[in-house]
Amino acid sequence: MSIVVVGTVAFDTVETPFGRGENVLGGSATYFSTSASFFTDVSLVAVVGEDFPEEHITFLQGRNIDTAGLQRIPGKTFHWSGRYGYDLNEAETLDTQLNVLMDFQPELSESYRDAEYLFLANIDPDLQMKVLEQVRKPKLVACDTMNFWISSKPEALKKVLRKVDVVVINEGEARQFTGEANLVKAARQIIALGCKRLVVKRGEYGVLMFTADSVFAAPAYPLEEVFDPTGAGDTFAGGFMGYLANTGDMSEEGLRQAIVFGSVMASFNVEDFSLERMKRLQYQEIEARYKQFKVLTSFRDISY
Amino acid sequence: MSIVVVGTVAFDTVETPFGRGENVLGGSATYFSTSASFFTDVSLVAVVGEDFPEEHITFLQGRNIDTAGLQRIPGKTFHWSGRYGYDLNEAETLDTQLNVLMDFQPELSESYRDAEYLFLANIDPDLQMKVLEQVRKPKLVACDTMNFWISSKPEALKKVLRKVDVVVINEGEARQFTGEANLVKAARQIIALGCKRLVVKRGEYGVLMFTADSVFAAPAYPLEEVFDPTGAGDTFAGGFMGYLANTGDMSEEGLRQAIVFGSVMASFNVEDFSLERMKRLQYQEIEARYKQFKVLTSFRDISY
Repeated sequence: MSIVVVGTVAFDTVETPFGRGENVLGGSATYFSTSASFFTDVSLVAVVGEDFPEEHITFLQGRNIDTAGLQRIPGKTFHWSGRYGYDLNEAETLDTQLNVLMDFQPELSESYRDAEYLFLANIDPDLQMKVLEQVRKPKLVACDTMNFWISSKPEALKKVLRKVDVVVINEGEARQFTGEANLVKAARQIIALGCKRLVVKRGEYGVLMFTADSVFAAPAYPLEEVFDPTGAGDTFAGGFMGYLANTGDMSEEGLRQAIVFGSVMASFNVEDFSLERMKRLQYQEIEARYKQFKVLTSFRDISY
Repeated sequence: MSIVVVGTVAFDTVETPFGRGENVLGGSATYFSTSASFFTDVSLVAVVGEDFPEEHITFLQGRNIDTAGLQRIPGKTFHWSGRYGYDLNEAETLDTQLNVLMDFQPELSESYRDAEYLFLANIDPDLQMKVLEQVRKPKLVACDTMNFWISSKPEALKKVLRKVDVVVINEGEARQFTGEANLVKAARQIIALGCKRLVVKRGEYGVLMFTADSVFAAPAYPLEEVFDPTGAGDTFAGGFMGYLANTGDMSEEGLRQAIVFGSVMASFNVEDFSLERMKRLQYQEIEARYKQFKVLTSFRDISY
């Protein structure tokens, strides 16, 4: 089954203690769709400017991503600049040039409106809602957001949360959104708003997935080399939804596997700048690392 | 099999956003031995002053802890004051009154020198070494330490690390000790110093256990109510070593189970101030929460 993702395609300028990437390919929809493309068909809805090079589109198409919904309009492509210190869990935004993103009006084509899987990457919650209203009978909708929308448009965001099946959010954002320091309480409050399932990303500490009556904890894969955490969250979401769309298994067990596949994808992505690691990645590596996650986390039942 | 623990017995004055405990029972050896006592026999070696009330000793003995090695000398008991903000992962030390601890010279009695399991809680690494030299043929020795000794006595600490089987340390301390921001690299460096196994405590994010060729990740139990993190690390270590001493199973599998039992014990301890939760704890609750850890972390192998 195929996924429609609505989000950003961007240029990123990123500094980490290990190097610098200038005007490299980035954006939430780029990371998401590339990651999901290892599992299923993906259609990307986003906007770029006249300066966006053909080679990036060729790369996306080479991963079998449908780019018919990638609008190109007059102006410059969205550009994000950020910096990471040795604590790679949090980026410091240095500059945000919205450019063509300011006029982004996501319109889904007729075939996209029948999407079974929809991912609303981090954009204005009013736009997320507009997209949501265009999709007829999705099997699963997930969304992401960020601190900027939590503080500037909390009511619009709450409306979106009520309509989606899975909310994917950072730990700090869950606390910010609810004003609750305890993460379990914060998660319960967000679920009480009306979303069925909450996935809390904790950077190098992994992921917690909550429903009203269950919790699943997955660690992040312990890596000796983390070069660039940019896009880790969207890469995670792409693996998560890609796996779900591939299997159609919406059971708790199926969703847990999807969380681990998402974590596997994120663990690869941070090993290099931009999407460089994704470009080299082979499916066998994904399965091998899934098995390593099993080894990493396994312990016996009580045996005495 | 029985464990000998050498560490502190203290009065703590603790503030958290949820309350305040003044001159409550604390100390690394207190938390460790109480936790371990749910699994095995424990002998406690520590020092208190004339002001230490009999009721605390009665409590320890009531948990079947051998207090013959608890010296009482003229002066006041060690007193630690600290405060936690909403980020309960890190305490701010407000005051440390060493008092009788300044003259602490741990001497093991003849029978303690045959201890099969030894835990060197967080004290001066020179004292840890003195204790280590007194024990004849231990099956397993573990030690803890803290930032103060890492910065003031790094060479003495390295000598201790070379002689122990398991080093238990906080995440921040592992980074401080090695000057390495990446935790996996920091762990490898500490193991390269000569200890066989490193357990890295990450507060609400759980624990990583490293050997030269394996990693195990255990989450912390997600709790809605965390009142006081004081003693969580020593309570963890007590559950970990208590379980090992009980089973004698030093395989990777046995050690992983011990990590989870340690995490279970820590998860109970933080639910109330001082050792209040430990006083009410029943063994059935421990087994039930171990099973909940299984549910929390389980996911299927790749099935397609």
